[in-house]
Amino acid sequence: MQAIKDAVHDYVDLCPLAADLLDTTPLQRLRHVRQLSTVALVYPSANHTRFEHSLGVYHLAREAAERLDLDDEDALRVRAAALLHDVGHGPFGHQTEPAIERHLGRHHDEVEDLLSATGVADVLADHGLSVPEVAETIAGEAEYGRLVSGDLDVDRMDYLVRDAHHTGVPYGTVDHGRLLRAFEYREGRLVLSEGNVATAESVLVARTLMNATVYRHHVSRIAGAMLDRAAERLLGAGFDPERFARLTDHELLVAFGEREATAEVARRLGERDLYKRAGWWTWEEVPEALVDNSYLDVRTLERKVAGLAGVEERDVILDNPGRPSIPESGAHVVVDGEVERLADVSTLVSGLGACAREQWRLGVYAPDEHVGAVSAAASEVLGTD
Amino acid sequence: MQAIKDAVHDYVDLCPLAADLLDTTPLQRLRHVRQLSTVALVYPSANHTRFEHSLGVYHLAREAAERLDLDDEDALRVRAAALLHDVGHGPFGHQTEPAIERHLGRHHDEVEDLLSATGVADVLADHGLSVPEVAETIAGEAEYGRLVSGDLDVDRMDYLVRDAHHTGVPYGTVDHGRLLRAFEYREGRLVLSEGNVATAESVLVARTLMNATVYRHHVSRIAGAMLDRAAERLLGAGFDPERFARLTDHELLVAFGEREATAEVARRLGERDLYKRAGWWTWEEVPEALVDNSYLDVRTLERKVAGLAGVEERDVILDNPGRPSIPESGAHVVVDGEVERLADVSTLVSGLGACAREQWRLGVYAPDEHVGAVSAAASEVLGTD
Amino acid sequence: MQAIKDAVHDYVDLCPLAADLLDTTPLQRLRHVRQLSTVALVYPSANHTRFEHSLGVYHLAREAAERLDLDDEDALRVRAAALLHDVGHGPFGHQTEPAIERHLGRHHDEVEDLLSATGVADVLADHGLSVPEVAETIAGEAEYGRLVSGDLDVDRMDYLVRDAHHTGVPYGTVDHGRLLRAFEYREGRLVLSEGNVATAESVLVARTLMNATVYRHHVSRIAGAMLDRAAERLLGAGFDPERFARLTDHELLVAFGEREATAEVARRLGERDLYKRAGWWTWEEVPEALVDNSYLDVRTLERKVAGLAGVEERDVILDNPGRPSIPESGAHVVVDGEVERLADVSTLVSGLGACAREQWRLGVYAPDEHVGAVSAAASEVLGTD
Amino acid sequence: MQAIKDAVHDYVDLCPLAADLLDTTPLQRLRHVRQLSTVALVYPSANHTRFEHSLGVYHLAREAAERLDLDDEDALRVRAAALLHDVGHGPFGHQTEPAIERHLGRHHDEVEDLLSATGVADVLADHGLSVPEVAETIAGEAEYGRLVSGDLDVDRMDYLVRDAHHTGVPYGTVDHGRLLRAFEYREGRLVLSEGNVATAESVLVARTLMNATVYRHHVSRIAGAMLDRAAERLLGAGFDPERFARLTDHELLVAFGEREATAEVARRLGERDLYKRAGWWTWEEVPEALVDNSYLDVRTLERKVAGLAGVEERDVILDNPGRPSIPESGAHVVVDGEVERLADVSTLVSGLGACAREQWRLGVYAPDEHVGAVSAAASEVLGTD
Repeated sequence: MQAIKDAVHDYVDLCPLAADLLDTTPLQRLRHVRQLSTVALVYPSANHTRFEHSLGVYHLAREAAERLDLDDEDALRVRAAALLHDVGHGPFGHQTEPAIERHLGRHHDEVEDLLSATGVADVLADHGLSVPEVAETIAGEAEYGRLVSGDLDVDRMDYLVRDAHHTGVPYGTVDHGRLLRAFEYREGRLVLSEGNVATAESVLVARTLMNATVYRHHVSRIAGAMLDRAAERLLGAGFDPERFARLTDHELLVAFGEREATAEVARRLGERDLYKRAGWWTWEEVPEALVDNSYLDVRTLERKVAGLAGVEERDVILDNPGRPSIPESGAHVVVDGEVERLADVSTLVSGLGACAREQWRLGVYAPDEHVGAVSAAASEVLGTD
Repeated sequence: MQAIKDAVHDYVDLCPLAADLLDTTPLQRLRHVRQLSTVALVYPSANHTRFEHSLGVYHLAREAAERLDLDDEDALRVRAAALLHDVGHGPFGHQTEPAIERHLGRHHDEVEDLLSATGVADVLADHGLSVPEVAETIAGEAEYGRLVSGDLDVDRMDYLVRDAHHTGVPYGTVDHGRLLRAFEYREGRLVLSEGNVATAESVLVARTLMNATVYRHHVSRIAGAMLDRAAERLLGAGFDPERFARLTDHELLVAFGEREATAEVARRLGERDLYKRAGWWTWEEVPEALVDNSYLDVRTLERKVAGLAGVEERDVILDNPGRPSIPESGAHVVVDGEVERLADVSTLVSGLGACAREQWRLGVYAPDEHVGAVSAAASEVLGTD
Repeated sequence: MQAIKDAVHDYVDLCPLAADLLDTTPLQRLRHVRQLSTVALVYPSANHTRFEHSLGVYHLAREAAERLDLDDEDALRVRAAALLHDVGHGPFGHQTEPAIERHLGRHHDEVEDLLSATGVADVLADHGLSVPEVAETIAGEAEYGRLVSGDLDVDRMDYLVRDAHHTGVPYGTVDHGRLLRAFEYREGRLVLSEGNVATAESVLVARTLMNATVYRHHVSRIAGAMLDRAAERLLGAGFDPERFARLTDHELLVAFGEREATAEVARRLGERDLYKRAGWWTWEEVPEALVDNSYLDVRTLERKVAGLAGVEERDVILDNPGRPSIPESGAHVVVDGEVERLADVSTLVSGLGACAREQWRLGVYAPDEHVGAVSAAASEVLGTD
Repeated sequence: MQAIKDAVHDYVDLCPLAADLLDTTPLQRLRHVRQLSTVALVYPSANHTRFEHSLGVYHLAREAAERLDLDDEDALRVRAAALLHDVGHGPFGHQTEPAIERHLGRHHDEVEDLLSATGVADVLADHGLSVPEVAETIAGEAEYGRLVSGDLDVDRMDYLVRDAHHTGVPYGTVDHGRLLRAFEYREGRLVLSEGNVATAESVLVARTLMNATVYRHHVSRIAGAMLDRAAERLLGAGFDPERFARLTDHELLVAFGEREATAEVARRLGERDLYKRAGWWTWEEVPEALVDNSYLDVRTLERKVAGLAGVEERDVILDNPGRPSIPESGAHVVVDGEVERLADVSTLVSGLGACAREQWRLGVYAPDEHVGAVSAAASEVLGTD
């Protein structure tokens, strides 16, 4: 069996299905999509890609399937889904996700069309798998799909550890060895076995701390917001959204660079010459209605702020992260023999919910030279205190 | 300058004072006192000692003092205190602490007598330091003493990372590089600089998760409780408490092995043939008055349980951890330019307080063959539900 | 002082000069040049860049300068040279180096023109440094230049450890803490102090083992050779060599993709659909004269092989690594009080020399479908046994 | 299945046999025998024990057996042998080995009597294994015994990595994931598969560098030699050699401390107040005949030196490491389809042989105050230049 050296899991042994899938275009493309997109602008070592992350998720899914003693067919399907779970991501992953959803009405884990249209479908067929069942598993819906996409899935078990390894920030080091040993199926549901409340809590804690220091670092958010607005201009000017969704990180930057409306963003991202914060408001400072604003509302507000500040529309970016959430709190754990929702048995989870709210910030960004004007205008338009 | 290789901090450079102190008997003795005492019975790799931990604390104190730009004299004193901070520990560290306090009325960080009576005093004098000022710094009282013994001190920065390295449990990996850079003095107080609420929280979180999985693992607690009762018998039979407090781990086991009243405990600890849990009650299940019981109360209850169960007195151990506390919550952090108590600005801290209470357990332990009888008797005597 | 988190050295503290240099275009460009270029095709986690490596080299140079007690001016210059030492690299680093040398007659560490023409010159001037002295230091020529570019320099101390961290291959883990403590200046020469023959040997050993498993892995060599030939076609078709030398990795792939003569290589590299080995000969199997062949000779041989095999010229690549060498063997070490050349006091070094020869391979590569024909033709043309 | 957390291999899953064996006295005893005995006097973090090492060897043996597809019975026997392979070690492992061999005529891997006389025999019988076949496997003799005790066995794969982890010295980090995947059986022999000459070399290199910096560090050798002489006095005074062989590290120190003839050594080791080097001669400086001296010859020479120097006999220790050897050079590797002896296909191996000779030192040790006199006398008596 072929084995690939990985910086996190040492060796990833490839089953024949995985070896075949790796050679397909959608998976090879992930070599050119960074796992943490613009985070490398803050943590320069964070250049790892969705390709190696996909290998890691495959590795963990495989071990989980063995420990859960899945039958051969289910195990094969789960492995395929794990390896393919990220092929639906556009360039820069989560940071172009809203733009893709607006223009294609499609979420990154809706991949049935994509799998059907590429060599992946043939590989799956060769190994006795159908595209729809793999696509459903990726979406977390088919049996055992929660292993791949659920509250406490192998996806986050890999990325937390991998992001820690490559950023150097230690908070993401969850104990995946213990999690793999704690998984069990009860009443048709993936749960953590007795004695693992702290194990589950540790994953939430890891993600909360990684959010604060890495995933939602303001510099990365600024770059991400700049990307989003440039993507909108590109797509608004007629760039084919299906083609957009299949670009790599650098192909997107090249596409930006070739068009006048976006060339400046390409330069700024390339040289880390980013917008600065003109506003950075806590949950308490922001009128609650604003949090649920649609994208169109946001763009309208940006225009208002720009007008009041006397700057170009593109000199104002309003970055609204929406309501904070903790998906892992829906995980299930066995406590005294009963399957319980983590949020019901752990008060730490509520503490983390409050923590997510404390970390929450609404951002307004502008070029360095307009920060003062935009800051004042934004306060007035948004009604922040 | 001499440098010592350390598994955690790579190299620890020794200043002349440290090189001289290392050769003294009280420090060399720490080579034979394990950092995590009985935890190695659960995590077999956890054999690291208070000697290497002391080197690590010295290393961090030295770097902190440099970054805080302490003057030479203060820096020297802080380094001495850091290196010597654990010399007051008895055999098996915290696990004989209550016995030593009962018999000597002395806490492990009251070390003035000890420093005076050994070669340490001469070394300190040679380097222009006085025993009392070093002893006060160790107790966290003299200027900058909070660096060595405070809410967020270099002691815990070292042990969390070191215990993670040697147990293999990843939760203790705090970001000490960031903490060192975040320390500042404001209004005569050691605080973490602006933007470091999450940094402080991460230390609490690390300790909470390490408590749950390592420090308060029930097997280690059982062994610790067995040690305490055997220590009590040894001291009760006339063993000199001052000599007791200076034994190493293995000297204590040998002392146990040589006396009939304690030989069985020596054998059991040596072969990991421990008492088992006859009771393991949560905070809610235990009458609150019980939690504040004195040691004498506890021993009286043990006798009652033994009587009711029809077993020897030494076949029952009641292990009462007392009220849960989170010392780090008193740490201070700068928020919006003001020095704030961490507990006042972080709701995660209150979540962790609740978490500490959820993890809390009152234990009753007995030899395997008496678990049934002791369990029933303990429920009745203690009034647990 | 600003600090940047690094996956290898934890935090890199930036002096004001470094903070200013980091914002210049030549350094920001290195974010887009991978340290190990095509090695990521074999070791998928190896996506680290010359940007973070440059930070690491800066970090080590700074610590070395402090330990060697350099005066402020020398230390400043050494730090600048360390941070800038790789700005002369073209896209894909060493793999386009021969093409750049052929077309510009310039080696990657000849950077005086580059430094002068960019914002770097202003930053250096602001901090009292001149471009020529920094450029000379980068080339290893000015005083203390051997720290940055010598037999045992901070450059290789960083890359060996960093490449190990990101590939997952453990062989590169040299003990840089010890090396930093072993450096001293004797008779105007950077040497390792008494007792460090094994320290020096360990660096050679690390590089030898990393060569065998990582740096000269045949898949990476094939991709590199394909890059070189495509670069030659691009430059031969009139692409400005100065512009070529300043491209990033992905800009080069885009340039390849836009031209018919190179589009196929762009696709093949993007999808990891590489040429295969049609020949892979050991040192003993290759006529010695061949090893010293010039690039033109090589191209002529390729044409001959292609003609004989009946394939297109571009379907044959002859990859001649030239004579093996071990630059570190020229390092100097103090033995019994005398400065000695490492090769003169270590027989392991001669073993490593032989080892380098054993690992040596001459490669001939061709598209999968032509491997048979090319293999036979190459044997005949080259006279390999 | 039970799993134990390990600092090196993360989790070690225990099969029922292993779980039962772990509870036996000979294995629990290994918790109190350090893996690197006196090395902790140089590398203070090196307190790991033969207990955790045995778990690690078991873990690797189990994975190797699975990958080699051994049948159930062979796999069970190999696992038992791996877990038990070190139970024959006396206190301080290799450092009392010569004393035990002199007095019991038994090597540490001759364990049949030991296994028969303890609870181990019952456990083996319960699982269908016989003591003799397990004992033979431990000695490397039964089928697949070379996996446990051979030229490139799982024993050294574990200890190199574990010693690196706990000392902090990076040189021991062999790629055990690759070695496990490279093992195969050919012609009844354990070999490394095609393409693994560098893999095998890396193990030799790791051990050579660990020898130089860790295993043969002079401070550890001095302490070891002091232990040996004290052991000889203890046994010479009638201490039962069978009981001696079963002591733990600390029990031996206590036994030393209780007897006048050895109390001083106990104190010196406890406080790291060691003898110093009065002689430290290279291979070239020592008359070759001396190297092959028997223990009795050595003791006679010590007496002569002591007489000439005018000191007590016990103030002189002559430490003769014997002829250097590289056991791994006998490993077998597949090269071009043929099984070859590593020494025959790797010139690096011969370089390492020379290296071992360069590192070789004959030591003479004495208390600090007698170093001068002993040094002069030793030169004269031994004829070193």
